[in-house]
Amino acid sequence: MTQILGHNYIGGQRSAAGTVTLHSVDATSGEQLPHTFYEATPEEVAAAAQAAAGAYPVYRSLSAARRAEFLDAIADELDALGDDFVAVVCRETALPAGRIQGERGRTSGQMRLFAKVLRRGDFYGARIDQALPDRQPLPRPDLRQYRIGLGPVAVFGASNFPLAFSTAGGDTASALAAGCPVVFKAHGGHMATAEQVADAILRAAKKTAMPDGVFNMIYGDRVGAALVQHPAIQAVGFTGSLRGGRALCDMAAARPQPIPVFAEMSSINPVIVLPQALAARAESVARDLTASVVQGCGQFCTNPGLVIGIRSAEFSAFVALVSGLINDQPPQTMLNAGGLDNYGNGLKKLLGHPGIEHLAGHPQQGKQAQPQLFKADASLLIDGDAVLQDEVFGPTTVFVEVADQAQLSAALHGLHGQLTATIIGEPADFEQFGELTPLLEQKVGRILLNGYPTGVEVCDSMVHGGPYPATSDARGTSVGTLAIDRFLRPVCFQNYPDSLLPDALKNANPLQIQRLVDGLPSREAL
Amino acid sequence: MTQILGHNYIGGQRSAAGTVTLHSVDATSGEQLPHTFYEATPEEVAAAAQAAAGAYPVYRSLSAARRAEFLDAIADELDALGDDFVAVVCRETALPAGRIQGERGRTSGQMRLFAKVLRRGDFYGARIDQALPDRQPLPRPDLRQYRIGLGPVAVFGASNFPLAFSTAGGDTASALAAGCPVVFKAHGGHMATAEQVADAILRAAKKTAMPDGVFNMIYGDRVGAALVQHPAIQAVGFTGSLRGGRALCDMAAARPQPIPVFAEMSSINPVIVLPQALAARAESVARDLTASVVQGCGQFCTNPGLVIGIRSAEFSAFVALVSGLINDQPPQTMLNAGGLDNYGNGLKKLLGHPGIEHLAGHPQQGKQAQPQLFKADASLLIDGDAVLQDEVFGPTTVFVEVADQAQLSAALHGLHGQLTATIIGEPADFEQFGELTPLLEQKVGRILLNGYPTGVEVCDSMVHGGPYPATSDARGTSVGTLAIDRFLRPVCFQNYPDSLLPDALKNANPLQIQRLVDGLPSREAL
Repeated sequence: MTQILGHNYIGGQRSAAGTVTLHSVDATSGEQLPHTFYEATPEEVAAAAQAAAGAYPVYRSLSAARRAEFLDAIADELDALGDDFVAVVCRETALPAGRIQGERGRTSGQMRLFAKVLRRGDFYGARIDQALPDRQPLPRPDLRQYRIGLGPVAVFGASNFPLAFSTAGGDTASALAAGCPVVFKAHGGHMATAEQVADAILRAAKKTAMPDGVFNMIYGDRVGAALVQHPAIQAVGFTGSLRGGRALCDMAAARPQPIPVFAEMSSINPVIVLPQALAARAESVARDLTASVVQGCGQFCTNPGLVIGIRSAEFSAFVALVSGLINDQPPQTMLNAGGLDNYGNGLKKLLGHPGIEHLAGHPQQGKQAQPQLFKADASLLIDGDAVLQDEVFGPTTVFVEVADQAQLSAALHGLHGQLTATIIGEPADFEQFGELTPLLEQKVGRILLNGYPTGVEVCDSMVHGGPYPATSDARGTSVGTLAIDRFLRPVCFQNYPDSLLPDALKNANPLQIQRLVDGLPSREAL
Repeated sequence: MTQILGHNYIGGQRSAAGTVTLHSVDATSGEQLPHTFYEATPEEVAAAAQAAAGAYPVYRSLSAARRAEFLDAIADELDALGDDFVAVVCRETALPAGRIQGERGRTSGQMRLFAKVLRRGDFYGARIDQALPDRQPLPRPDLRQYRIGLGPVAVFGASNFPLAFSTAGGDTASALAAGCPVVFKAHGGHMATAEQVADAILRAAKKTAMPDGVFNMIYGDRVGAALVQHPAIQAVGFTGSLRGGRALCDMAAARPQPIPVFAEMSSINPVIVLPQALAARAESVARDLTASVVQGCGQFCTNPGLVIGIRSAEFSAFVALVSGLINDQPPQTMLNAGGLDNYGNGLKKLLGHPGIEHLAGHPQQGKQAQPQLFKADASLLIDGDAVLQDEVFGPTTVFVEVADQAQLSAALHGLHGQLTATIIGEPADFEQFGELTPLLEQKVGRILLNGYPTGVEVCDSMVHGGPYPATSDARGTSVGTLAIDRFLRPVCFQNYPDSLLPDALKNANPLQIQRLVDGLPSREAL
């Protein structure tokens, strides 16, 4: 098994200058694991940011093809992490081995997809307006635009995806693809996992001759603020709680130079169950919905936390069906004790609310999370009661019964921004409820028909984003290839001779990429 | 001449509920102009934001072709604003008629360019990943992505471009193109101009049957904060001072729901004059540079406020040449008395700094701005002295002589973010100073070779943006078609039947736009 050193990763070196040590925990037993991790000192945090800044001019100037080699090499190293590694992740997170094996493939696949994006070249956003020397009243100079990486990016990983949203996850992949060196703050819930993934990234960096400092990682619960406030950091990627994400946003906005933060934070992912679907297939919907609610112990950003239906005998029967299924679900171990505490507290709020009724689920006690089902008055949604807008992270969901189609719209209007919304319906429903799609478009990043929001495909079209508080900036996505856009900015060259232009903008189009030339897409040489 | 009513524009109606009145001023004489304008009350500010929010669902759902008709109609109305209008603008701004006529054409041309973007359809960012039902271990659902407008946008115009960066300027044009209704805060320096342009926009809105509230305008010096803080506003465009822009950014970041602000604020636009260029053509460079410094009384965001050269007899002779030319430049009337005060104060700071020498220019006094030339120690740049980083808005520039090529790099490293940087050089210079382009790319939005930064072409490739404090978000541009990206966000549809998808994503590709289909650009039907 790989050695776990527990030192910070700074500019290709390991560093443990501090005295505060951390330990990760066996998520199932609560037992402290043997490895010792060293919280980065303020000087180490600064050194990590400076190492990234030092790497930036070299790294961003590498050809996209070279950066693609690096990402592919990371993917290979991730795939090569074997059963020992999977066992470490499982121990730190209590997630099953099958899930971790799948997530490993997803994470390496994501790296390879960004390598493909780099080779495809559309991320450059190359645009050329050729000179018009004879234009009246003034000639037009030659103008060309492409995009470059913003600079060093600080990434904060999530507890719930120790691979795909962590050390080598989507934020890291998209930042590295964009030409931005990364300083990753290791998640305290899976530090041994983080260390092995960081080692994999550094092996890949070495194999592909990347500059020292292209990837850095620091340990510690109290290092985030100093990292975000360091002047070398130019953007932040974050996946986690609303409170944590908003705190980083506020810090970033208050810097002498404010920087963008892409925080994916809080979503209750409404599911709307329409009448004809209930008439046609209530049982399968109940089964699939319940599976989505309890999948991975409900620890998904896209976990369906709210289910809305229209009052009817069929909906009452459906609620009874789901209640029965929820009562049958076994308890599960959560990612960590803090998560279980939060889940318990969230349940208490729901249980204590006079407008909310407990429908199913065994009393929450012990070391595992008990699946739960609640039902809330529609008025809570329409009036914007905070309790329904707060994500309860775990295997629970709240049903809301609305009186009719008009009240359904009113309830949806009351929702905050979400990552996803789901409509379960038959063709006749879609005809009757045509207002839902335009309404939901204004609320969410992704709308699903007859599917379940858990399960986020990594592809060009995915949006894992949405209006606040789902994220801090609805213009981004943290899954899928569009994620690279968050870390790019345009630069324009005016009247530049061909030899001095970047390859993406040279007349001969040596990269053979598509460019917008005088207003038309083209792959031709000029 | 058109009647000037001075009431706020709210949801297609005029409103003057307040008691605070404002007057604009003849910029040349300082005389108060007869029209009375009514500062919007807090209720009117809210009503304007709500009118925009009311228009949003309808306006954003219009086809891009319909929005293009609206923009074209605005352009026609702008072009039809005649000599009376030009006279009003000249009176409010002291800008010459020829300049205003040119700016009118630029502003209408900008509207037409965004109409073209809408018809081109690349702004949709359409992406399709078709279902892979047989994929192992899990099938891939059909996923499709396009972009929609963020929602109502608040726009704050600039004093220095009363048309092109104001009521119907680039921020308004790009927001309207994106499908975002606008609430425009009229600039106090040209309220009669703003009123006539707003009337033109509303005539166009009526002709093309746009929803009431698609464009709103409020008067008042104290209405900006309430506008930015209104929950209906989803983004802000601003052109103006660093202090004003930063204040809006801070307000927007502190909202319960933070929103993006695109503020174009402060830039000193360094010009680097290289040795071979001086040897070859010092006189023409001196002439063209001086013309750029004093053009429009130096009231351009891209005014060259810093000129850097390497110590040599040729550079000394060049400095003497420019000094002579600056002494020959006539004083000019500024946009308003406040601008003249600011210019005077900026000059005082430069004159009072022990590291800065006054080289040329008649004493600043009276009602007009006197062009001035200064020279600063290179150490001020290298050490990041604030006085050199602050934009002095007006016809002045500061020369810096560096010892050698290494000191040139050090001086440029010390610069804050800029809209532009300019290199004046010969081919031999470019060979010798190859480090400049990658270095400047990290500092600016646009790099020019052998040109002058004043004069910002409106086209696809333009970047009028750059790192802080040039703008609040280096990922945007406020000139050129990429400006539309600031106001768009992606939405993903999963497993949607063709009939329910927006046209941009339907199988038949009825808009005949280019889309990214399964990773490849395509205009084909599916």
